[in-house]
Amino acid sequence: MQLPLGFRYSGVRANIKKSGLPDLALVVTEEPATAAGVYTQNIVRAASIDWNRAITPTENFRGLVVNAGNANACTGAQGVADNQQMAAELARQIDATENQICVLSTGVIGHLLPMRNVVSGIEAAIQTAGDSPAHFDAASSAILTTDQSPKVAHSSIEISGSEIRIAAMAKGAGMIGPNMATMLAVVTTDARLDASTAADVLNRVANRSFNNISVEGHTSTNDALLLLASGQAMASPLSGLDLENFEGELTRIAIELAKKIPSDGEGATHLICISVTGAATDADATRIAKSIANSALVKCAITGGDPNWGRIVSAAGYCGVEIQANEISLHLNGHELFRDGTPTAFDAAIVSQSIKDSFETDVQLSVGGGPGRSQHWTSDLTVAYVRFNSEYTT
Amino acid sequence: MQLPLGFRYSGVRANIKKSGLPDLALVVTEEPATAAGVYTQNIVRAASIDWNRAITPTENFRGLVVNAGNANACTGAQGVADNQQMAAELARQIDATENQICVLSTGVIGHLLPMRNVVSGIEAAIQTAGDSPAHFDAASSAILTTDQSPKVAHSSIEISGSEIRIAAMAKGAGMIGPNMATMLAVVTTDARLDASTAADVLNRVANRSFNNISVEGHTSTNDALLLLASGQAMASPLSGLDLENFEGELTRIAIELAKKIPSDGEGATHLICISVTGAATDADATRIAKSIANSALVKCAITGGDPNWGRIVSAAGYCGVEIQANEISLHLNGHELFRDGTPTAFDAAIVSQSIKDSFETDVQLSVGGGPGRSQHWTSDLTVAYVRFNSEYTT
Repeated sequence: MQLPLGFRYSGVRANIKKSGLPDLALVVTEEPATAAGVYTQNIVRAASIDWNRAITPTENFRGLVVNAGNANACTGAQGVADNQQMAAELARQIDATENQICVLSTGVIGHLLPMRNVVSGIEAAIQTAGDSPAHFDAASSAILTTDQSPKVAHSSIEISGSEIRIAAMAKGAGMIGPNMATMLAVVTTDARLDASTAADVLNRVANRSFNNISVEGHTSTNDALLLLASGQAMASPLSGLDLENFEGELTRIAIELAKKIPSDGEGATHLICISVTGAATDADATRIAKSIANSALVKCAITGGDPNWGRIVSAAGYCGVEIQANEISLHLNGHELFRDGTPTAFDAAIVSQSIKDSFETDVQLSVGGGPGRSQHWTSDLTVAYVRFNSEYTT
Repeated sequence: MQLPLGFRYSGVRANIKKSGLPDLALVVTEEPATAAGVYTQNIVRAASIDWNRAITPTENFRGLVVNAGNANACTGAQGVADNQQMAAELARQIDATENQICVLSTGVIGHLLPMRNVVSGIEAAIQTAGDSPAHFDAASSAILTTDQSPKVAHSSIEISGSEIRIAAMAKGAGMIGPNMATMLAVVTTDARLDASTAADVLNRVANRSFNNISVEGHTSTNDALLLLASGQAMASPLSGLDLENFEGELTRIAIELAKKIPSDGEGATHLICISVTGAATDADATRIAKSIANSALVKCAITGGDPNWGRIVSAAGYCGVEIQANEISLHLNGHELFRDGTPTAFDAAIVSQSIKDSFETDVQLSVGGGPGRSQHWTSDLTVAYVRFNSEYTT
């Protein structure tokens, strides 16, 4: 694994989490870099979201501070001041200004940050920051909350003779809904991008990856996806075919990383991969896919290894998209269950076994002859999810 | 309990259900009566839905046949033919014509009806039909599927010197979503209504009752609400103030009956009563209430007795309605948890205990100073719900 040039990473214990696990991460650059973001659409949102929105996209980024264990959301004016202090502290440590610093927070809602611990944590983190894989891994561990393990993805590609590296980390296992960058994710690269290009690319990538995942469909207050581009791998910003190639690779990495979130969904025993084709438009296909993904009955059926086509087809039927019932066909794990509006004579035992034998369940729904298509990834709904979310208290 | 004049009811075992429980019900009139319906908006829908849509509203109704245990949905041309045969059989038994007969089906999707059993059942049911409370109860039992007990509501009111009686039955415990008459319900009355008035009244009543309930938000293929008015209590159709009084009473009965559905939601340990006020419009308030009601995280919090205002407030925030975060206030079981965008210093132990001590949990959200308001009733999400829906196979 080769990390992108131009970044230092760090992850430390700042005693924000009661568990004592690592909970403060930094990503800093020596030189000004490009940063773009995609943020939660929730009206109830964290101070950090408004802060980042105001300063991205930018070509003047110098540092990112992330705390886990406390979302700093619904915390009023004090929360806004605390968020600003986090930016100011990191800026002071690296000879930057506040508006060169992005901030991300994740964890419980409605509690004030323990700012003494946060400030000490930033000081400690900058002391230990470095550019090795171990430093990257420390950062990726320090952003987690209810995740079972770190979520990372790496790649490197050659574009017009330059080696470009991408290293990405994400967190998220619950309160995951498909309405804009539903988690925290930070993608670093040493490609050079101007600010507006970075923002455009990131929006398109988000709509093909992080916006198409869900656990229970609950859009959080703190969701954010950041793209940080140091430009150290090349002299001029990417454009034309080179930019297209880069975007393709970035999309691939983003999907790889995004799928890890529902795979680690609270209590999940299956990753459900939903593909909808034949809709009038991509937007229609997306609405159908999300309706299936958000159906508790569909999720429970997969949990139980039940090839319950009725729940899948009816979830497509009630989502408000105009489709013809007699044009709907369904494959599950490659088996045809439903064709042109009526069930086929499939062997339920074989299909059931195919669900039970694999962590991934493949749902392919065709709704007609249109060009619209969409993919969505979600977790199943288990007894463990309900136990966890009945017992976990904010 | 006095039943409306002019109806006979019946409920029998027709061996459609594997369990051998009663599964075929009739409601018949001697004289032509008014019938109106509100039906599922799901594009994937049962043969019975299209049948009833074609013949209601009508002033020429003579009979209703309901079967449980088989939804006759996604059954193609044979399903349509079977539905027609059900109507024809009942018509033959009571000297009516097919188009005077409504049909309702509920149960598993995608299987053909055992028509020999259905036809024998109709013959047996007409033999035993009667107008006593025992007959009404037999019918209300024969329409159930996963319900734990019959759901009925009765009333009688005096309007302009006439005694008017209402007797209503419903079924439904799963696949309950708030997008049009989400279950089977049959309301009989001896009020006299013309067909178009009956249809208008029923639409308004549905939007204040059955359209505001949910279990997991999954709109079924077979939902239907029928209003059957024999007119036997009076000579002329209701109008003016008399009609308003009748509609008020019908709304009260419909809400009473509708609330029994999420109260009996699969695995439910709480009925969650959500009231949203202060929105710009009623439609906005409804969208917010449904977003809260459909949040698995909110439902799990109530299951666990957790006064988790963060999940409630953020569900309001992501539903797409334009509200101001600093105008949101929340009461739970009468305790103020959140005011003007920030949490209050409430005693979590006391509020938690109030959730645990009562089957009903009262959620009151105010989102501003507007006139829009809405109510919604839903069940919580429990381990038992997931167990049931992972193990129950279509």
